Parts: sequence; C-alpha cells; structure tokens
Amino acid sequence: MPDYQPVDLTKCYRLLNHGPTVLVSSAHGGRHNVMAAAWSMPLDFNPPKVAVVIDKATLSRQLIEASGEFVLNVPLQPQAAAVLQVGSDSGLQVADKFAASGLVAMSGHAVAAPHVAGCAGWLECKLLREPHNQQQYDLFIGEVVSAWADPELFANGHWQPILDDAKRTLHYIAGGHFFAIGDAFDVSVPD
Amino acid sequence: MPDYQPVDLTKCYRLLNHGPTVLVSSAHGGRHNVMAAAWSMPLDFNPPKVAVVIDKATLSRQLIEASGEFVLNVPLQPQAAAVLQVGSDSGLQVADKFAASGLVAMSGHAVAAPHVAGCAGWLECKLLREPHNQQQYDLFIGEVVSAWADPELFANGHWQPILDDAKRTLHYIAGGHFFAIGDAFDVSVPD
Repeated sequence: MPDYQPVDLTKCYRLLNHGPTVLVSSAHGGRHNVMAAAWSMPLDFNPPKVAVVIDKATLSRQLIEASGEFVLNVPLQPQAAAVLQVGSDSGLQVADKFAASGLVAMSGHAVAAPHVAGCAGWLECKLLREPHNQQQYDLFIGEVVSAWADPELFANGHWQPILDDAKRTLHYIAGGHFFAIGDAFDVSVPD
Repeated sequence: MPDYQPVDLTKCYRLLNHGPTVLVSSAHGGRHNVMAAAWSMPLDFNPPKVAVVIDKATLSRQLIEASGEFVLNVPLQPQAAAVLQVGSDSGLQVADKFAASGLVAMSGHAVAAPHVAGCAGWLECKLLREPHNQQQYDLFIGEVVSAWADPELFANGHWQPILDDAKRTLHYIAGGHFFAIGDAFDVSVPD
C-alpha cells in the first residue's frame, strides 16, 4: 500500500513554501531522469504554480521541454547523499541516474514523469511554456496538476510535528553542505 | 560600528540557497516599505540574480517599479512576529510598516532601498524589468549589485555554525507557522 495520499491543490504550495531543496524528475521517449534543484519556489496559490531553474546543459531540460511535464519531489535527510549525487552527475553522461544514485522511481499519477520514492511530497506539474524565461534565465514555470504527500509528514494541508530526525527536509547550501529543517514554531501578530 | 561585512558577489546566492523567507525592502519618493516574501530564490550565480514574487496590491510593488531597486533581507527567529506582521499589513494602509512592526531601517549601500537591521544578510538588487513576468506572474527578477552579511553568521562565503538558536533563519509555512532552520551537516557523493 503506498505511503502517500493526495494533497488539496490549494494547499500544495505548503510543501515548498519553507524553501526545501527539491528533486526534479522527468521522463520522455523511454528515458527518465532526476536532478536536484535548490532554486525552486511556489509562484501562485490557485491554480498552483511553481518556478524552478533548470540549466541548459542537462538531460532533464531536454526531457521536460519534450514532454511538457515534470515532478518536484521534496526529499528527506537520508536522501542527502543521493541528492548531492544527482545534482552533480548529468543524465547526459550517466545512463540511469536513478540506478546510479539508489533513488527509486515510482509511477506518477497525472503525468508520465516519475515520483522519487521516500520523499515528503510530490508536485506533478505541467510546463507553462515561456520561451523567453527558459532561454534567458533557465527559468521554468509549471502548473501543479496533482499533489501528494506522506501523511506522516504532511496531512490535511499541514506539516505534522517532526518526530524523527530522518524525516527532516533538506536545504542545500553549497559543496556537500546542507541544512536540515529545524522545528516548527508559531507566532502571532502583536496587538 | 556596523555588525555586517561585504559578501563576495559570487557567493551571495548562498544567503538564499537554503530557502529562507525574506523581507523585501524598498524606497521611492520619500516613502520606504518592507514586506515578507516566502517566494524568492536565486536565479543565477554570476552576475548573481534573484527572483521574488510581489503581489500587485502592494505598496512595495509601486516603490520597486518606480525606483527599480529592492533589498532582500534574510531575517532571524526573533523577528518572526514582525515578519508575519509585515507580511499581513499593507503599506497602502499602514503609514510606516517599519515603525508599526518594530523593524529598524538602515541605509543601503548601492541602492536607496533600506536594509532591515538585525538580519543575517542583505542582497541589494537592481530590478531587471520583465513586464510580462511582472504582469502575468507577479514575478520580479533582480541583479544583486551589493551583498552584506553578519559575519557571526556568514563569513568568507560560508554559513558559520549556529551557536545561538536566536540566529536561525526563518522558513515560513502558512498562518502563524514557521520552521526555524536546523543544523548543518555534510555529505559526500558515494564512490
């Protein structure tokens, strides 16, 4: 039984809102691929949109431009070495970055691009083609058409208390350096 | 003596790379303003560029479009309530959001837009005007022309070990809910 559940599309921005590093997965013409992206963000609530930077010299870019689809996966601390690896290697040189990194591809729902197993959440996106942004800034915009999360971590539109350090999202700095997300806290606007 | 030092522009993306929520400060024609933005990211290394989402119904947008400048400030945990407040109030209703929130404006260096005191870092940006992105997506792109950081937190292009929980960056979720950043860790690509 899969360990993920659908996320209300109006709440799916919350999977990205705190700035985690993501894995971008894609597929086209019998190839699939996965890369890391520290540079992504929500772009709108409803319909939900996202922005992500995808370098020209990547197989992912070829697959995304050809298929018009991608998935943003929100990886967790035990996946950090694999995130670093798929952020360093290129699918233009490595036959299968999933196999090489140990990351596991699962079928997507509304898109052909795969999910990466063991993540906190998954945003399935249709590319909103913006040739100027793609060429000038390597900037890709997508509409989230389907979203999923591990309910132990994110349920009913809310992040759940982190009971296990292995369930912390990753926030990449540079080199081999990451932050793990810390604990949640609440504030209110002063009267 | 100011508690900040210049940051090498080729390293300044590292102030944003881990996905902190930022404060966007701006000034024009005798008014200044500050708003919160969870939706920002680096967009390029050299020259460094950033992307940030700025809603149409904001004073900040008027000031940024008129001045062509803004500052991305990286606030810290003790500022969370003020971040929430300046993310809720509008400068179109509140005469001075700095005064109302208790945030303190300091002079910028290469831009007229102010810095917010007490942050981890400051990215002074010149707007790269992209009317389609601004209109269609509320998406603003800037080139970082000057960058500064509190050397206790970020020095020689690197985040320093966090010795004080009050020095953790903020990662906004929704409502009054934030994550604080956790601890840094290193990984290496497996052989």
